[in-house]
Amino acid sequence: MSGENTESEVFKKPVVVVVDPKTPGNIGTIARAMKNFGLEELLLVDPPELHRDSEAYGFAGHAREDILPNAREVTFDEVVNNYHTIGCTAITGEDSRRHIRYPFKTPVEIKQDLRTLSAPTAIVFGREGTGLSNEELAQIDQICSIPASDEYPVLNLGQAATVLLYELRELTIAETQLPDVTQTRAAEPDIERLYGYLSEFLAAQGYNDRKTEKTTRLIRRLIGRTHPTDREVHTLMGVFRRANAQLNHRQELLERYDEPDTLSSHTNP
Amino acid sequence: MSGENTESEVFKKPVVVVVDPKTPGNIGTIARAMKNFGLEELLLVDPPELHRDSEAYGFAGHAREDILPNAREVTFDEVVNNYHTIGCTAITGEDSRRHIRYPFKTPVEIKQDLRTLSAPTAIVFGREGTGLSNEELAQIDQICSIPASDEYPVLNLGQAATVLLYELRELTIAETQLPDVTQTRAAEPDIERLYGYLSEFLAAQGYNDRKTEKTTRLIRRLIGRTHPTDREVHTLMGVFRRANAQLNHRQELLERYDEPDTLSSHTNP
Repeated sequence: MSGENTESEVFKKPVVVVVDPKTPGNIGTIARAMKNFGLEELLLVDPPELHRDSEAYGFAGHAREDILPNAREVTFDEVVNNYHTIGCTAITGEDSRRHIRYPFKTPVEIKQDLRTLSAPTAIVFGREGTGLSNEELAQIDQICSIPASDEYPVLNLGQAATVLLYELRELTIAETQLPDVTQTRAAEPDIERLYGYLSEFLAAQGYNDRKTEKTTRLIRRLIGRTHPTDREVHTLMGVFRRANAQLNHRQELLERYDEPDTLSSHTNP
Repeated sequence: MSGENTESEVFKKPVVVVVDPKTPGNIGTIARAMKNFGLEELLLVDPPELHRDSEAYGFAGHAREDILPNAREVTFDEVVNNYHTIGCTAITGEDSRRHIRYPFKTPVEIKQDLRTLSAPTAIVFGREGTGLSNEELAQIDQICSIPASDEYPVLNLGQAATVLLYELRELTIAETQLPDVTQTRAAEPDIERLYGYLSEFLAAQGYNDRKTEKTTRLIRRLIGRTHPTDREVHTLMGVFRRANAQLNHRQELLERYDEPDTLSSHTNP
Protein backbone atom coordinates (compact mmCIF):
# COMPACT_ATOMS: atom_id res chain seq x y z
CA MET A 1 0.00 0.00 0.00
CA SER A 2 1.18 3.51 -0.78
CA GLY A 3 3.03 5.40 1.89
CA GLU A 4 2.74 8.61 -0.14
CA ASN A 5 0.25 10.04 2.28
CA THR A 6 1.39 10.33 5.84
CA GLU A 7 -0.26 12.08 8.70
CA SER A 8 1.64 15.04 9.98
CA GLU A 9 2.67 15.16 13.63
CA VAL A 10 1.13 18.58 14.02
CA PHE A 11 -1.96 18.40 11.90
CA LYS A 12 -5.32 17.49 13.43
CA LYS A 13 -8.02 16.13 11.14
CA PRO A 14 -10.62 18.83 10.50
CA VAL A 15 -14.29 18.38 11.25
CA VAL A 16 -16.77 19.03 8.44
CA VAL A 17 -19.67 21.40 9.05
CA VAL A 18 -22.69 21.81 6.78
CA VAL A 19 -24.79 24.89 7.47
CA ASP A 20 -28.51 24.73 6.81
CA PRO A 21 -28.49 21.95 4.19
CA LYS A 22 -31.84 21.38 2.53
CA THR A 23 -31.25 18.08 0.72
CA PRO A 24 -30.55 14.90 2.71
CA GLY A 25 -28.84 13.44 -0.40
CA ASN A 26 -26.11 16.07 -0.26
CA ILE A 27 -25.39 15.25 3.38
CA GLY A 28 -25.00 11.60 2.36
CA THR A 29 -22.67 12.56 -0.49
CA ILE A 30 -20.53 14.64 1.87
CA ALA A 31 -20.43 11.80 4.43
CA ARG A 32 -19.26 9.39 1.72
CA ALA A 33 -16.53 11.78 0.56
CA MET A 34 -15.41 12.11 4.19
CA LYS A 35 -15.12 8.34 4.48
CA ASN A 36 -13.33 8.10 1.11
CA PHE A 37 -10.79 10.69 2.21
CA GLY A 38 -10.27 9.75 5.84
CA LEU A 39 -12.35 12.27 7.78
CA GLU A 40 -14.68 11.30 10.61
CA GLU A 41 -16.57 14.07 12.35
CA LEU A 42 -19.61 15.64 10.70
CA LEU A 43 -21.41 18.59 12.33
CA LEU A 44 -24.73 19.90 11.04
CA VAL A 45 -26.28 23.31 11.59
CA ASP A 46 -30.09 23.27 11.11
CA PRO A 47 -30.17 20.01 9.17
CA PRO A 48 -33.31 18.39 7.75
CA GLU A 49 -34.51 15.16 9.34
CA LEU A 50 -32.21 12.31 8.37
CA HIS A 51 -34.28 9.15 8.37
CA ARG A 52 -32.66 5.78 7.84
CA ASP A 53 -34.55 5.49 4.55
CA SER A 54 -33.70 9.02 3.37
CA GLU A 55 -31.34 9.83 0.48
CA ALA A 56 -28.78 10.82 3.12
CA TYR A 57 -28.33 7.14 3.91
CA GLY A 58 -28.87 6.15 0.27
CA PHE A 59 -25.97 8.33 -0.91
CA ALA A 60 -23.59 7.75 2.01
CA GLY A 61 -22.10 4.41 0.96
CA HIS A 62 -20.24 2.88 3.90
CA ALA A 63 -20.43 6.20 5.75
CA ARG A 64 -23.99 5.18 6.60
CA GLU A 65 -22.44 2.92 9.23
CA ASP A 66 -20.55 5.54 11.22
CA ILE A 67 -20.11 9.12 9.99
CA LEU A 68 -23.77 9.72 9.21
CA PRO A 69 -25.38 8.22 12.36
CA ASN A 70 -22.70 9.93 14.50
CA ALA A 71 -23.27 13.37 12.93
CA ARG A 72 -23.96 15.97 15.63
CA GLU A 73 -26.28 18.95 15.44
CA VAL A 74 -24.59 22.20 16.48
CA THR A 75 -25.15 25.93 16.20
CA PHE A 76 -23.15 28.17 13.88
CA ASP A 77 -21.92 30.10 16.92
CA GLU A 78 -20.58 26.92 18.53
CA VAL A 79 -18.57 26.25 15.39
CA VAL A 80 -17.18 29.78 15.24
CA ASN A 81 -16.29 29.73 18.93
CA ASN A 82 -14.59 26.34 19.02
CA TYR A 83 -12.80 25.96 15.71
CA HIS A 84 -10.48 27.66 13.30
CA THR A 85 -13.00 27.94 10.48
CA ILE A 86 -12.49 27.59 6.74
CA GLY A 87 -15.56 28.57 4.73
CA CYS A 88 -16.12 27.46 1.15
CA THR A 89 -17.62 29.69 -1.49
CA ALA A 90 -17.72 29.59 -5.28
CA ILE A 91 -17.90 33.35 -5.59
CA THR A 92 -15.03 35.33 -4.12
CA GLY A 93 -14.26 38.99 -3.81
CA GLU A 94 -12.77 40.49 -6.93
CA ASP A 95 -9.97 42.23 -5.10
CA SER A 96 -8.80 43.52 -1.76
CA ARG A 97 -11.33 46.33 -1.35
CA ARG A 98 -13.91 44.18 0.43
CA HIS A 99 -13.05 41.55 3.00
CA ILE A 100 -16.04 39.25 3.35
CA ARG A 101 -14.93 36.95 0.53
CA TYR A 102 -11.31 38.05 0.31
CA PRO A 103 -8.51 37.06 0.55
CA PHE A 104 -9.34 33.49 -0.43
CA LYS A 105 -7.26 30.37 -0.86
CA THR A 106 -7.57 27.46 -3.28
CA PRO A 107 -7.89 23.91 -1.92
CA VAL A 108 -4.18 23.32 -2.62
CA GLU A 109 -3.25 26.43 -0.64
CA ILE A 110 -5.55 25.43 2.23
CA LYS A 111 -3.80 22.06 2.33
CA GLN A 112 -0.40 23.72 2.53
CA ASP A 113 -1.66 25.97 5.30
CA LEU A 114 -3.20 23.19 7.39
CA ARG A 115 -0.09 21.05 7.13
CA THR A 116 1.66 23.09 9.80
CA LEU A 117 -1.36 24.23 11.80
CA SER A 118 -2.06 22.65 15.16
CA ALA A 119 -5.59 23.84 15.91
CA PRO A 120 -9.06 22.32 15.88
CA THR A 121 -10.23 23.19 12.39
CA ALA A 122 -13.65 23.12 10.77
CA ILE A 123 -14.30 23.03 7.03
CA VAL A 124 -17.63 24.82 6.64
CA PHE A 125 -19.99 24.39 3.70
CA GLY A 126 -23.11 26.46 3.17
CA ARG A 127 -26.62 25.64 2.04
CA GLU A 128 -27.39 24.55 -1.52
CA GLY A 129 -28.10 27.35 -3.96
CA THR A 130 -26.90 30.32 -1.93
CA GLY A 131 -23.95 28.90 0.03
CA LEU A 132 -22.76 30.69 3.16
CA SER A 133 -24.32 34.11 3.71
CA ASN A 134 -22.16 37.21 3.87
CA GLU A 135 -23.02 37.44 7.57
CA GLU A 136 -21.76 33.90 8.12
CA LEU A 137 -18.65 34.43 6.00
CA ALA A 138 -17.80 37.52 8.04
CA GLN A 139 -17.39 35.27 11.10
CA ILE A 140 -15.25 32.70 9.24
CA ASP A 141 -11.44 32.80 9.55
CA GLN A 142 -10.37 31.74 6.07
CA ILE A 143 -12.14 31.57 2.74
CA CYS A 144 -11.63 28.67 0.33
CA SER A 145 -12.71 28.71 -3.30
CA ILE A 146 -12.39 25.94 -5.86
CA PRO A 147 -11.03 27.16 -9.20
CA ALA A 148 -13.58 26.32 -11.90
CA SER A 149 -14.84 27.61 -15.22
CA ASP A 150 -15.36 31.35 -15.31
CA GLU A 151 -18.57 30.63 -17.24
CA TYR A 152 -20.06 28.36 -14.57
CA PRO A 153 -17.99 28.19 -11.40
CA VAL A 154 -20.76 27.10 -9.01
CA LEU A 155 -20.30 23.48 -8.00
CA ASN A 156 -23.05 21.46 -6.42
CA LEU A 157 -22.62 21.29 -2.62
CA GLY A 158 -21.73 17.59 -2.52
CA GLN A 159 -19.33 17.92 -5.44
CA ALA A 160 -17.57 20.92 -3.90
CA ALA A 161 -17.07 19.02 -0.64
CA THR A 162 -15.75 16.01 -2.56
CA VAL A 163 -13.16 18.12 -4.37
CA LEU A 164 -11.93 19.86 -1.23
CA LEU A 165 -11.70 16.67 0.83
CA TYR A 166 -9.92 14.95 -2.09
CA GLU A 167 -7.39 17.77 -2.13
CA LEU A 168 -6.75 17.46 1.63
CA ARG A 169 -6.23 13.68 1.38
CA GLU A 170 -2.48 13.86 1.89
CA LEU A 171 -3.16 15.20 5.38
CA THR A 172 -6.05 12.93 6.29
CA ILE A 173 -5.25 9.52 4.78
CA ALA A 174 -2.43 7.44 6.19
CA GLU A 175 -2.68 4.75 3.50
CA THR A 176 -4.37 4.93 0.12
CA GLN A 177 -5.68 1.86 -1.68
CA LEU A 178 -3.10 2.31 -4.41
CA PRO A 179 -0.05 0.08 -4.37
CA ASP A 180 3.26 1.84 -4.14
CA VAL A 181 4.28 2.39 -7.74
CA THR A 182 7.79 3.64 -7.25
CA GLN A 183 10.45 1.34 -8.67
CA THR A 184 8.13 -0.58 -10.95
CA ARG A 185 10.34 0.05 -13.96
CA ALA A 186 12.04 -3.21 -14.81
CA ALA A 187 15.74 -3.59 -14.07
CA GLU A 188 17.86 -1.87 -16.73
CA PRO A 189 19.91 -5.02 -17.57
CA ASP A 190 16.62 -6.80 -18.38
CA ILE A 191 15.45 -3.92 -20.55
CA GLU A 192 18.82 -4.00 -22.35
CA ARG A 193 18.45 -7.75 -22.89
CA LEU A 194 15.05 -7.05 -24.45
CA TYR A 195 16.63 -4.54 -26.85
CA GLY A 196 19.13 -7.26 -27.73
CA TYR A 197 16.32 -9.64 -28.62
CA LEU A 198 14.70 -6.91 -30.69
CA SER A 199 17.91 -6.29 -32.64
CA GLU A 200 18.19 -10.02 -33.29
CA PHE A 201 14.55 -10.00 -34.35
CA LEU A 202 15.25 -7.36 -36.95
CA ALA A 203 18.47 -8.98 -38.15
CA ALA A 204 16.80 -12.38 -38.36
CA GLN A 205 14.33 -10.88 -40.82
CA GLY A 206 17.19 -9.80 -43.01
CA TYR A 207 17.46 -6.12 -42.13
CA ASN A 208 20.98 -4.86 -42.74
CA ASP A 209 23.08 -3.50 -39.85
CA ARG A 210 22.25 0.13 -40.50
CA LYS A 211 18.50 -0.47 -40.68
CA THR A 212 18.65 -2.77 -37.63
CA GLU A 213 20.51 -0.14 -35.63
CA LYS A 214 18.15 2.66 -36.66
CA THR A 215 15.00 0.65 -35.95
CA THR A 216 16.37 -0.63 -32.64
CA ARG A 217 16.94 2.98 -31.63
CA LEU A 218 13.34 3.84 -32.52
CA ILE A 219 12.09 0.93 -30.41
CA ARG A 220 14.42 1.91 -27.56
CA ARG A 221 12.86 5.38 -27.51
CA LEU A 222 9.35 3.95 -27.66
CA ILE A 223 9.80 1.42 -24.89
CA GLY A 224 12.02 3.77 -22.87
CA ARG A 225 9.24 6.27 -22.37
CA THR A 226 6.75 3.64 -21.23
CA HIS A 227 8.88 2.65 -18.22
CA PRO A 228 8.09 -1.03 -18.76
CA THR A 229 7.48 -3.23 -15.74
CA ASP A 230 9.39 -6.37 -14.97
CA ARG A 231 6.48 -8.48 -16.11
CA GLU A 232 6.18 -6.59 -19.39
CA VAL A 233 9.87 -6.89 -20.20
CA HIS A 234 9.96 -10.60 -19.41
CA THR A 235 6.80 -11.25 -21.41
CA LEU A 236 8.22 -9.40 -24.41
CA MET A 237 11.56 -11.18 -24.09
CA GLY A 238 9.71 -14.48 -24.22
CA VAL A 239 7.74 -13.41 -27.29
CA PHE A 240 10.79 -12.26 -29.21
CA ARG A 241 13.02 -15.15 -28.14
CA ARG A 242 10.43 -17.49 -29.62
CA ALA A 243 9.96 -15.36 -32.76
CA ASN A 244 13.73 -15.18 -33.28
CA ALA A 245 14.08 -18.94 -32.97
CA GLN A 246 11.34 -19.46 -35.57
CA LEU A 247 12.79 -16.86 -37.94
CA ASN A 248 16.23 -18.46 -37.69
CA HIS A 249 14.66 -21.87 -38.20
CA ARG A 250 13.00 -20.58 -41.38
CA GLN A 251 16.42 -19.55 -42.70
CA GLU A 252 17.73 -23.07 -41.95
CA LEU A 253 14.78 -24.57 -43.82
CA LEU A 254 15.36 -22.29 -46.82
CA GLU A 255 18.99 -23.37 -46.98
CA ARG A 256 18.27 -27.04 -46.37
CA TYR A 257 15.72 -27.16 -49.19
CA ASP A 258 17.41 -24.56 -51.35
CA GLU A 259 14.25 -22.44 -51.40
CA PRO A 260 14.45 -18.84 -52.68
CA ASP A 261 13.93 -16.17 -49.96
CA THR A 262 11.42 -13.83 -51.55
CA LEU A 263 10.31 -12.27 -48.24
CA SER A 264 13.60 -11.24 -46.68
CA SER A 265 14.94 -7.69 -46.69
CA HIS A 266 18.05 -9.11 -48.32
CA THR A 267 16.04 -9.47 -51.49
CA ASN A 268 13.37 -6.81 -50.86
CA PRO A 269 15.19 -4.00 -49.15
CA MET B 1 -9.74 36.78 -13.96
CA SER B 2 -6.96 34.34 -13.37
CA GLY B 3 -4.69 33.45 -16.24
CA GLU B 4 -3.24 30.55 -14.25
CA ASN B 5 -4.95 28.04 -16.50
CA THR B 6 -4.15 28.23 -20.17
CA GLU B 7 -5.07 25.83 -22.91
CA SER B 8 -2.16 24.04 -24.41
CA GLU B 9 -1.53 24.30 -28.14
CA VAL B 10 -1.34 20.55 -28.45
CA PHE B 11 -3.96 19.32 -26.03
CA LYS B 12 -7.46 18.53 -27.26
CA LYS B 13 -10.29 18.54 -24.69
CA PRO B 14 -11.27 14.98 -23.88
CA VAL B 15 -14.78 13.67 -24.30
CA VAL B 16 -16.43 12.01 -21.30
CA VAL B 17 -17.95 8.55 -21.71
CA VAL B 18 -20.22 6.83 -19.19
CA VAL B 19 -20.71 3.11 -19.76
CA ASP B 20 -24.02 1.53 -18.77
CA PRO B 21 -25.04 4.06 -16.11
CA LYS B 22 -28.12 3.07 -14.13
CA THR B 23 -28.95 6.32 -12.33
CA PRO B 24 -29.98 9.41 -14.30
CA GLY B 25 -28.88 11.53 -11.32
CA ASN B 26 -25.26 10.48 -11.75
CA ILE B 27 -25.33 11.46 -15.43
CA GLY B 28 -26.58 14.89 -14.36
CA THR B 29 -23.83 15.19 -11.74
CA ILE B 30 -21.19 14.30 -14.33
CA ALA B 31 -22.63 16.79 -16.83
CA ARG B 32 -22.50 19.52 -14.18
CA ALA B 33 -18.87 18.70 -13.31
CA MET B 34 -18.05 18.86 -17.04
CA LYS B 35 -19.56 22.32 -17.28
CA ASN B 36 -17.80 23.44 -14.07
CA PHE B 37 -14.46 22.29 -15.44
CA GLY B 38 -14.74 23.30 -19.08
CA LEU B 39 -15.60 20.06 -20.89
CA GLU B 40 -18.34 19.78 -23.49
CA GLU B 41 -18.89 16.41 -25.12
CA LEU B 42 -20.70 13.64 -23.24
CA LEU B 43 -21.06 10.16 -24.77
CA LEU B 44 -23.27 7.50 -23.21
CA VAL B 45 -23.11 3.72 -23.69
CA ASP B 46 -26.45 2.01 -22.90
CA PRO B 47 -27.85 4.90 -20.87
CA PRO B 48 -31.23 4.92 -19.15
CA GLU B 49 -33.94 7.21 -20.57
CA LEU B 50 -33.14 10.82 -19.74
CA HIS B 51 -36.43 12.65 -19.47
CA ARG B 52 -36.51 16.41 -19.02
CA ASP B 53 -38.03 15.86 -15.59
CA SER B 54 -35.54 13.15 -14.54
CA GLU B 55 -32.85 13.57 -11.90
CA ALA B 56 -30.34 13.82 -14.77
CA TYR B 57 -31.75 17.28 -15.53
CA GLY B 58 -32.34 17.99 -11.84
CA PHE B 59 -28.67 17.43 -10.95
CA ALA B 60 -27.09 18.97 -14.05
CA GLY B 61 -27.23 22.66 -13.07
CA HIS B 62 -26.56 24.80 -16.14
CA ALA B 63 -25.36 21.73 -18.03
CA ARG B 64 -29.05 20.97 -18.54
CA GLU B 65 -28.96 23.63 -21.25
CA ASP B 66 -26.24 22.15 -23.45
CA ILE B 67 -24.10 19.20 -22.35
CA LEU B 68 -26.96 16.98 -21.27
CA PRO B 69 -29.35 17.50 -24.23
CA ASN B 70 -26.39 17.19 -26.62
CA ALA B 71 -25.17 13.91 -25.09
CA ARG B 72 -24.82 11.22 -27.78
CA GLU B 73 -25.47 7.52 -27.44
CA VAL B 74 -22.55 5.40 -28.69
CA THR B 75 -21.29 1.82 -28.44
CA PHE B 76 -18.29 0.81 -26.36
CA ASP B 77 -16.55 -0.38 -29.54
CA GLU B 78 -17.00 3.02 -31.18
CA VAL B 79 -15.26 4.62 -28.21
CA VAL B 80 -12.37 2.15 -28.25
CA ASN B 81 -11.92 2.52 -32.03
CA ASN B 82 -12.02 6.30 -32.18
CA TYR B 83 -10.34 7.56 -29.03
CA HIS B 84 -7.29 7.18 -26.86
CA THR B 85 -9.15 5.81 -23.83
CA ILE B 86 -8.53 6.44 -20.14
CA GLY B 87 -10.63 4.20 -17.90
CA CYS B 88 -11.32 5.01 -14.26
CA THR B 89 -11.39 2.40 -11.54
CA ALA B 90 -11.21 2.51 -7.75
CA ILE B 91 -9.60 -0.89 -7.52
CA THR B 92 -6.28 -1.35 -9.27
CA GLY B 93 -3.93 -4.24 -9.71
CA GLU B 94 -1.70 -4.84 -6.72
CA ASP B 95 1.42 -5.15 -8.81
CA SER B 96 2.76 -5.79 -12.28
CA ARG B 97 1.79 -9.47 -12.53
CA ARG B 98 -1.61 -8.78 -14.08
CA HIS B 99 -2.27 -6.10 -16.65
CA ILE B 100 -5.98 -5.46 -16.70
CA ARG B 101 -5.85 -2.86 -13.93
CA TYR B 102 -2.13 -2.16 -14.05
CA PRO B 103 -0.14 -0.01 -14.50
CA PHE B 104 -2.42 2.82 -13.42
CA LYS B 105 -1.97 6.57 -13.09
CA THR B 106 -3.38 9.03 -10.59
CA PRO B 107 -5.41 12.02 -11.86
CA VAL B 108 -2.37 14.27 -11.46
CA GLU B 109 -0.27 11.90 -13.56
CA ILE B 110 -3.00 11.67 -16.21
CA LYS B 111 -3.04 15.46 -16.38
CA GLN B 112 0.72 15.57 -16.92
CA ASP B 113 0.41 12.94 -19.61
CA LEU B 114 -2.42 14.64 -21.50
CA ARG B 115 -0.66 17.99 -21.47
CA THR B 116 1.60 16.95 -24.35
CA LEU B 117 -0.71 14.50 -26.09
CA SER B 118 -2.35 15.49 -29.36
CA ALA B 119 -4.98 12.79 -29.81
CA PRO B 120 -8.74 12.52 -29.45
CA THR B 121 -9.06 11.28 -25.89
CA ALA B 122 -11.98 9.78 -23.97
CA ILE B 123 -12.28 9.63 -20.18
CA VAL B 124 -14.34 6.51 -19.55
CA PHE B 125 -16.37 5.87 -16.40
CA GLY B 126 -18.13 2.59 -15.61
CA ARG B 127 -21.50 1.71 -14.18
CA GLU B 128 -22.39 2.40 -10.55
CA GLY B 129 -21.50 -0.34 -8.15
CA THR B 130 -19.24 -2.47 -10.31
CA GLY B 131 -17.46 0.09 -12.49
CA LEU B 132 -15.87 -1.00 -15.75
CA SER B 133 -15.70 -4.77 -16.24
CA ASN B 134 -12.35 -6.52 -16.66
CA GLU B 135 -13.33 -7.20 -20.27
CA GLU B 136 -13.92 -3.48 -20.85
CA LEU B 137 -10.74 -2.47 -19.03
CA ALA B 138 -8.73 -4.86 -21.20
CA GLN B 139 -9.67 -2.73 -24.23
CA ILE B 140 -8.81 0.56 -22.51
CA ASP B 141 -5.45 2.24 -23.15
CA GLN B 142 -4.69 3.77 -19.76
CA ILE B 143 -6.04 3.16 -16.27
CA CYS B 144 -6.72 6.02 -13.87
CA SER B 145 -7.34 5.55 -10.16
CA ILE B 146 -8.12 8.23 -7.57
CA PRO B 147 -6.07 7.84 -4.39
CA ALA B 148 -8.47 7.46 -1.47
CA SER B 149 -8.68 5.80 1.91
CA ASP B 150 -7.42 2.25 1.99
CA GLU B 151 -10.41 1.46 4.20
CA TYR B 152 -12.99 2.72 1.71
CA PRO B 153 -11.53 3.76 -1.64
CA VAL B 154 -14.70 3.39 -3.73
CA LEU B 155 -16.04 6.80 -4.69
CA ASN B 156 -19.54 7.28 -6.00
CA LEU B 157 -19.57 7.54 -9.82
CA GLY B 158 -20.51 11.23 -9.90
CA GLN B 159 -17.98 12.11 -7.22
CA ALA B 160 -15.17 10.23 -8.97
CA ALA B 161 -15.90 12.07 -12.22
CA THR B 162 -15.95 15.39 -10.36
CA VAL B 163 -12.53 14.76 -8.82
CA LEU B 164 -10.92 13.71 -12.09
CA LEU B 165 -12.37 16.61 -14.11
CA TYR B 166 -11.34 19.01 -11.32
CA GLU B 167 -7.79 17.68 -11.55
CA LEU B 168 -7.70 18.18 -15.34
CA ARG B 169 -8.98 21.77 -15.06
CA GLU B 170 -5.64 23.36 -15.90
CA LEU B 171 -5.92 21.76 -19.34
CA THR B 172 -9.59 22.42 -19.95
CA ILE B 173 -10.33 25.83 -18.44
CA ALA B 174 -8.93 28.96 -20.05
CA GLU B 175 -10.16 31.28 -17.31
CA THR B 176 -11.28 30.44 -13.79
CA GLN B 177 -13.67 32.59 -11.82
CA LEU B 178 -10.94 33.44 -9.33
CA PRO B 179 -9.31 36.83 -9.58
CA ASP B 180 -5.57 36.83 -10.08
CA VAL B 181 -4.13 36.96 -6.59
CA THR B 182 -0.48 37.49 -7.36
CA GLN B 183 0.92 40.79 -6.09
CA THR B 184 -1.78 41.44 -3.51
CA ARG B 185 0.76 42.02 -0.72
CA ALA B 186 0.80 45.71 0.05
CA ALA B 187 3.83 47.76 -0.98
CA GLU B 188 6.70 47.29 1.49
CA PRO B 189 7.11 51.04 2.20
CA ASP B 190 3.44 51.12 3.28
CA ILE B 191 3.91 48.09 5.52
CA GLU B 192 6.97 49.77 7.05
CA ARG B 193 4.95 52.94 7.68
CA LEU B 194 2.39 50.77 9.47
CA TYR B 195 5.13 49.35 11.71
CA GLY B 196 6.14 52.93 12.44
CA TYR B 197 2.60 53.76 13.57
CA LEU B 198 2.60 50.62 15.72
CA SER B 199 5.87 51.63 17.41
CA GLU B 200 4.45 55.09 18.08
CA PHE B 201 1.32 53.41 19.42
CA LEU B 202 3.36 51.46 21.95
CA ALA B 203 5.53 54.42 22.88
CA ALA B 204 2.47 56.64 23.25
CA GLN B 205 1.17 54.26 25.91
CA GLY B 206 4.39 54.66 27.84
CA TYR B 207 6.28 51.53 26.90
CA ASN B 208 10.02 52.10 27.23
CA ASP B 209 12.27 51.82 24.19
CA ARG B 210 13.28 48.22 24.82
CA LYS B 211 9.72 47.01 25.32
CA THR B 212 8.55 49.01 22.29
CA GLU B 213 11.26 47.50 20.11
CA LYS B 214 10.56 43.96 21.28
CA THR B 215 6.82 44.25 20.85
CA THR B 216 7.17 45.92 17.46
CA ARG B 217 9.28 42.96 16.35
CA LEU B 218 6.57 40.54 17.51
CA ILE B 219 3.97 42.47 15.53
CA ARG B 220 6.26 42.62 12.49
CA ARG B 221 6.51 38.81 12.51
CA LEU B 222 2.76 38.43 12.96
CA ILE B 223 1.77 40.81 10.18
CA GLY B 224 4.66 39.72 7.98
CA ARG B 225 3.36 36.21 7.62
CA THR B 226 -0.15 37.36 6.73
CA HIS B 227 1.02 39.15 3.56
CA PRO B 228 -1.36 42.04 4.25
CA THR B 229 -3.15 43.62 1.33
CA ASP B 230 -2.99 47.27 0.43
CA ARG B 231 -6.47 47.81 1.82
CA GLU B 232 -5.60 46.08 5.10
CA VAL B 233 -2.43 48.11 5.62
CA HIS B 234 -4.13 51.41 4.89
CA THR B 235 -7.08 50.55 7.14
CA LEU B 236 -4.73 49.67 10.00
CA MET B 237 -2.63 52.80 9.43
CA GLY B 238 -5.83 54.84 9.74
CA VAL B 239 -6.81 53.06 12.95
CA PHE B 240 -3.45 53.53 14.62
CA ARG B 241 -2.91 57.09 13.42
CA ARG B 242 -6.17 57.96 15.11
CA ALA B 243 -5.35 55.95 18.23
CA ASN B 244 -1.92 57.57 18.48
CA ALA B 245 -3.39 61.05 18.19
CA GLN B 246 -5.84 60.29 20.99
CA LEU B 247 -3.18 58.72 23.20
CA ASN B 248 -0.93 61.75 22.71
CA HIS B 249 -3.86 64.05 23.38
CA ARG B 250 -4.48 62.21 26.66
CA GLN B 251 -0.89 62.95 27.69
CA GLU B 252 -1.43 66.65 26.87
CA LEU B 253 -4.59 66.63 28.97
CA LEU B 254 -2.78 64.97 31.88
CA GLU B 255 -0.09 67.61 31.74
CA ARG B 256 -2.48 70.50 31.22
CA TYR B 257 -4.61 69.53 34.24
CA ASP B 258 -1.75 68.09 36.26
CA GLU B 259 -3.52 64.73 36.52
CA PRO B 260 -1.59 61.66 37.75
CA ASP B 261 -0.96 59.02 35.06
CA THR B 262 -1.96 55.82 36.83
CA LEU B 263 -2.43 53.80 33.59
CA SER B 264 0.83 54.39 31.80
CA SER B 265 3.66 51.91 31.62
CA HIS B 266 5.88 54.70 32.90
CA THR B 267 4.27 54.13 36.27
CA ASN B 268 3.18 50.51 35.86
CA PRO B 269 6.03 48.81 34.01
